[in-house]
Amino acid sequence: MRKSENKAIERLLKYLEYVKNKKAEGQNYVFSHELADFVGVTPAQVRQDLMDFKIEGTPQKGYPVESFFDEVCSHLKCDSRTKIVLVGVGNLGKAILSYFVKRKPNLEIVAAFDSDQEKSDRIYSGTKILNVSELYNFVKKERVKVGIITTPADSAQDIADILIKAGIRGIVNFAPITIKVPESVFLEQIDITLSIEKTAYFAEKIAGEK
Amino acid sequence: MRKSENKAIERLLKYLEYVKNKKAEGQNYVFSHELADFVGVTPAQVRQDLMDFKIEGTPQKGYPVESFFDEVCSHLKCDSRTKIVLVGVGNLGKAILSYFVKRKPNLEIVAAFDSDQEKSDRIYSGTKILNVSELYNFVKKERVKVGIITTPADSAQDIADILIKAGIRGIVNFAPITIKVPESVFLEQIDITLSIEKTAYFAEKIAGEK
Repeated sequence: MRKSENKAIERLLKYLEYVKNKKAEGQNYVFSHELADFVGVTPAQVRQDLMDFKIEGTPQKGYPVESFFDEVCSHLKCDSRTKIVLVGVGNLGKAILSYFVKRKPNLEIVAAFDSDQEKSDRIYSGTKILNVSELYNFVKKERVKVGIITTPADSAQDIADILIKAGIRGIVNFAPITIKVPESVFLEQIDITLSIEKTAYFAEKIAGEK
Repeated sequence: MRKSENKAIERLLKYLEYVKNKKAEGQNYVFSHELADFVGVTPAQVRQDLMDFKIEGTPQKGYPVESFFDEVCSHLKCDSRTKIVLVGVGNLGKAILSYFVKRKPNLEIVAAFDSDQEKSDRIYSGTKILNVSELYNFVKKERVKVGIITTPADSAQDIADILIKAGIRGIVNFAPITIKVPESVFLEQIDITLSIEKTAYFAEKIAGEK
């Protein structure tokens, strides 16, 4: 997977979100500058992306919402349902469970897992919590394709290995450690602490330059 | 700020973390391949970065932990304390507050803010929660340099505008909307839902190709 494709898919997902809202509001056309504004790219980038999808608009009216939506949706297979498991039901895991539920109906967190026996066999925000010892069998049996890791750093690689062995094809890792996955698995790393540290560095640098 | 500098600072922060742990364990030398492994880059990249810092190692022993730490720490000004505010004490905000506290002693979340009166004047995970009406004055008076936004999408830009007007120099935005900041403010956007959606897309794509 090339980096440019990664970024292009991010933009498409954002276009889709915007157009979906406009569709719900009953709007028939959108302009490239609206989309550019929403996504934080140039209107030229939007036009290039939509040209790649053969979505045609006019300078007067913009792009037709209906066909735009259908075209991008079909490319992103946004009607198909993806099963997700989350591992590590601490504060961050809980935040994702409660935030995520029902927000994206095509993405379903089918179960969450934790090593703490106390947390097992409970329901959190509508999601069943199971013991991590059941992870491998569950993922394999349910053919889950995506895993979210919100465990501490020292267990993240072990969890990733179990997920991959059980057939997972994409991992979102929040543990503050770089995990290793084979090329056949898509990996998204989100290191919140690192992002805050980096922002602090640049903020202090900018403040010092003034 | 160029993109390459952004990535270089991320790597330095990770090297520093690794070397700090090794220092605490009493280790005297580290190898470039250890660092590369930890950060998820090539050993050649590590050697290049360390050459830029004039940190010299030998193929037999590696890099000396002590001078490595001092050199990188001084560049990153890792002894200076940065004041941070967090706005939006929902599930994600709470997760960051409880996760972050004491993890990075040089970064201090000095207060959190919410528009809900019910949440005001309480303490969460050791952090004081104030009403968002006090945000501007607090940031200005305390000379806070970094803001973390964990509000819903529709208030994120307003909050960013208040923060910037009050003197903030860096923003970490978790709200699922692209906020606009002037060039004199560093912006880090973390869109968790988008990352999960993107991972689902690529996971399904990989699964379909098999």
